[in-house]
Amino acid sequence: MPGGGAKTDSGRFFEDYRVGEVLRHAVPRTVGGGERALYHALYPARHAIHSSDAFAQACGLPASPLDDLIGFHVVFGKTVPDVSLNARANLGYAEGRWLRPVWPGDTLRSESEVIGLKQNSNGRTGVVWVRTRGLNQHGETVIEYVRWVMVKKRDAEAPAPETVVPDLKTALEAGDLAVPEGLDFSNYDTDLAGEPHRLGDYAPGEVIDHVDGVTIEEAEHMMATRLWQNTSKTHFDGTAREDGKRLIYGGHVISMARALSFNGLANAQMIVGLNGGAHANPCFAGETLRAWSEVLDVAETGAPGVGAIRLRLVATTDGSVGTLKDAAGKYLPGVLLDLDYWALMPV
Amino acid sequence: MPGGGAKTDSGRFFEDYRVGEVLRHAVPRTVGGGERALYHALYPARHAIHSSDAFAQACGLPASPLDDLIGFHVVFGKTVPDVSLNARANLGYAEGRWLRPVWPGDTLRSESEVIGLKQNSNGRTGVVWVRTRGLNQHGETVIEYVRWVMVKKRDAEAPAPETVVPDLKTALEAGDLAVPEGLDFSNYDTDLAGEPHRLGDYAPGEVIDHVDGVTIEEAEHMMATRLWQNTSKTHFDGTAREDGKRLIYGGHVISMARALSFNGLANAQMIVGLNGGAHANPCFAGETLRAWSEVLDVAETGAPGVGAIRLRLVATTDGSVGTLKDAAGKYLPGVLLDLDYWALMPV
Amino acid sequence: MPGGGAKTDSGRFFEDYRVGEVLRHAVPRTVGGGERALYHALYPARHAIHSSDAFAQACGLPASPLDDLIGFHVVFGKTVPDVSLNARANLGYAEGRWLRPVWPGDTLRSESEVIGLKQNSNGRTGVVWVRTRGLNQHGETVIEYVRWVMVKKRDAEAPAPETVVPDLKTALEAGDLAVPEGLDFSNYDTDLAGEPHRLGDYAPGEVIDHVDGVTIEEAEHMMATRLWQNTSKTHFDGTAREDGKRLIYGGHVISMARALSFNGLANAQMIVGLNGGAHANPCFAGETLRAWSEVLDVAETGAPGVGAIRLRLVATTDGSVGTLKDAAGKYLPGVLLDLDYWALMPV
Repeated sequence: MPGGGAKTDSGRFFEDYRVGEVLRHAVPRTVGGGERALYHALYPARHAIHSSDAFAQACGLPASPLDDLIGFHVVFGKTVPDVSLNARANLGYAEGRWLRPVWPGDTLRSESEVIGLKQNSNGRTGVVWVRTRGLNQHGETVIEYVRWVMVKKRDAEAPAPETVVPDLKTALEAGDLAVPEGLDFSNYDTDLAGEPHRLGDYAPGEVIDHVDGVTIEEAEHMMATRLWQNTSKTHFDGTAREDGKRLIYGGHVISMARALSFNGLANAQMIVGLNGGAHANPCFAGETLRAWSEVLDVAETGAPGVGAIRLRLVATTDGSVGTLKDAAGKYLPGVLLDLDYWALMPV
Repeated sequence: MPGGGAKTDSGRFFEDYRVGEVLRHAVPRTVGGGERALYHALYPARHAIHSSDAFAQACGLPASPLDDLIGFHVVFGKTVPDVSLNARANLGYAEGRWLRPVWPGDTLRSESEVIGLKQNSNGRTGVVWVRTRGLNQHGETVIEYVRWVMVKKRDAEAPAPETVVPDLKTALEAGDLAVPEGLDFSNYDTDLAGEPHRLGDYAPGEVIDHVDGVTIEEAEHMMATRLWQNTSKTHFDGTAREDGKRLIYGGHVISMARALSFNGLANAQMIVGLNGGAHANPCFAGETLRAWSEVLDVAETGAPGVGAIRLRLVATTDGSVGTLKDAAGKYLPGVLLDLDYWALMPV
Repeated sequence: MPGGGAKTDSGRFFEDYRVGEVLRHAVPRTVGGGERALYHALYPARHAIHSSDAFAQACGLPASPLDDLIGFHVVFGKTVPDVSLNARANLGYAEGRWLRPVWPGDTLRSESEVIGLKQNSNGRTGVVWVRTRGLNQHGETVIEYVRWVMVKKRDAEAPAPETVVPDLKTALEAGDLAVPEGLDFSNYDTDLAGEPHRLGDYAPGEVIDHVDGVTIEEAEHMMATRLWQNTSKTHFDGTAREDGKRLIYGGHVISMARALSFNGLANAQMIVGLNGGAHANPCFAGETLRAWSEVLDVAETGAPGVGAIRLRLVATTDGSVGTLKDAAGKYLPGVLLDLDYWALMPV
């Protein structure tokens, strides 16, 4: 029998990456109202600017842009075959910026530049840093972020590359954030947005329990992950574990937690910066997700009525609020996600 | 730790309502082809006017309007945070009218006027009547209905309000119904619609067994309920019950039963009136829904070829047909829904 | 109690078919971006021409057409009430041709001509052959195929019709295939498509293991099957079997296997011919699908840069590759689907 797998993609291994190379990821994707409707069906997303053309227009935009995390997931999904098919762990994010809204009808593609490499001391894995850019059909960057992953070596005997560890910001400053062209919160309608709290009502250190819980089903997380054309086997193949469960895409947890955070942060309308993030523990179907946030910073932007709020978003499976790590600095077992991001909010 | 829930919405309690006040509900929503596709994926909906632009155009409409229940669910969903977050029971509906079709691209928002209040004798709950209106981006009312719910008091000691019980019609008359502008069933194509039965083929008292059964999954009802941005915790949080099951949104049962009723009522094309409805028993995943209808009335409308049929739609879990209540007037345990509505049908 | 089922459709039985009659199937359907998004959520579909307007435009098309199998499923679904409601088995397909792309906004309807009848020797069933055509809103045929099914007789005593067995091609030739107007693969971008392999890289006899597995959920296959308005009870009613499982629509297996075949056949962009197909064994939720393909033929078409590849696509539940049948010629128990089709691929 000829063939037998020679045409299929086994992914890149650690020794396949070179600092400076640009990976042009496959399968551009046109996104629109269908993706938006599915996003609303999969997550309890209610931020008004992503829900209503009329609300978005009252905020100076031509129409309601797709949820900021739709853009992130689509751009991220395209990188999986080239970056994380042989990854052991998704180690971190930094310097994530949403530079332009994604509009219905836009076509997104992704490319990643390798910006760092460091072989681990065990000689069997290494860390790869990539700066990924999502581009629209006009060639404009809509989103960019740095991600680093631990990748297996194909051959443990392959020589270690020169170590290059990129110098990354711990957090973006407010001046690094891009406010969408035309955005104006001067006549912001808090009734329609769902809550009265404006930027001035939040203070660094404040912790918000978002209260609501959502129990996760296999069908939902697989539909979500496929929607972003994320092909990582571990999310779909129930034969990989004895209990038949599939490891849930970390982005599903991000979107669920962000949507749950509406209750207390309804006016944190648009995500514009990703400072960092950790997928602290794996998530499986049957677990009930809850979320809490901590206000880390507040800032002005140049745009009329538009402020920025820096938030820590934490997803849990045990309903804990305000606690993250044990005495040894290890994430507590009930913590799934610890995300640090900037959002735009009316002042 | 500062904060800790102060920003989240705990909902309104019975003593928070005043007769005459108008609640402007949050989060307007633009609906379109994505919501339509999901509606067809979640329910076996086949009424041709909501499935095909070409069929709708042959009936005098500019395009296929979104399913009438999409409008209902979106408008209803918006009322949940202000009306039923602390509700113990959804007691009834009356005077529901679909006044204009919802077209793809329309943005819907909701407002509710409190039209009645009655504290219960136990002093711990009360009944709130609201008249809810769904408005499109032009400020036109697309749907209105009265709903009353039993709401908890925050403080059992709070004084009872003056009792106001609104005077509601038992059923709309045919003259109360709004026929969509341009609707013309003169050249109605029964082949494409799926059944030959016209208004004259139905007689009051006739009972139709819709035969088909659908077993319900958790993932489906949660996706449906989220799609309408209905935030009621009980539909999503599996930790609330020992068996992990989530109480299914009553509207999911309405849509499933209405879609199943295609088999026998394929020509009951558009819902235009809601006379009343009872969610007789709770519904849970794993149950298999079936439906039957009883013809309650038939009437002419002024529009060419367009008649109206008043129907009782009953959803069951036990396949029973034609029986509703026991000798004491209590709904039988296998009955989930008893809905009284008007639909438009070719004469 | 009057009525009681007289209005519902019990479907056609074997003795209801006449050779030469044309069945005009009900419920036309407008399809668009919502159906596309759901298709991507339900299947790991990644073929670039169906994913991206920009990619499709670079291949000479005005926009990204809907996945070829969306057209097939919608057209097929409409035939179920008239063809297969009382079917015991779906026996085969032949002479399937995709004649025009389906564009977002198109309205599809179906009609079927009865082209063969043969009563079985047991006298209780018979085989019905139909040639089904899917038509768009302009009356153009977008897809046509022959299907034959074993249908129950209502009355075993009804006389057998004259036997007519249509003369069907074992396989279409390359010259029978329709290449979409304007399609041009001269400047095909293999980076964006996802794989470098072109038609010349494939040779008849080559077997490709598509590697990835997807575990199937009840919610997913029911949503898919409803989306195509396929009303066959067996896919939805969990009370029909003791284990509560529902028989999965064979088309769900086709779409899942086709999507999995991206890994190794990313450039087999558009399905244009269906030579035959067998649903070898039933599929149930909880099973993990994998797929392999065998190259059967390669051919030129007249269009610039556009070749055709004939493939056998096999879906399995046991991960077997390259084996189909036992010594007696019976499909092995781990084989779900054996499909023979033509796709277009850059030369």
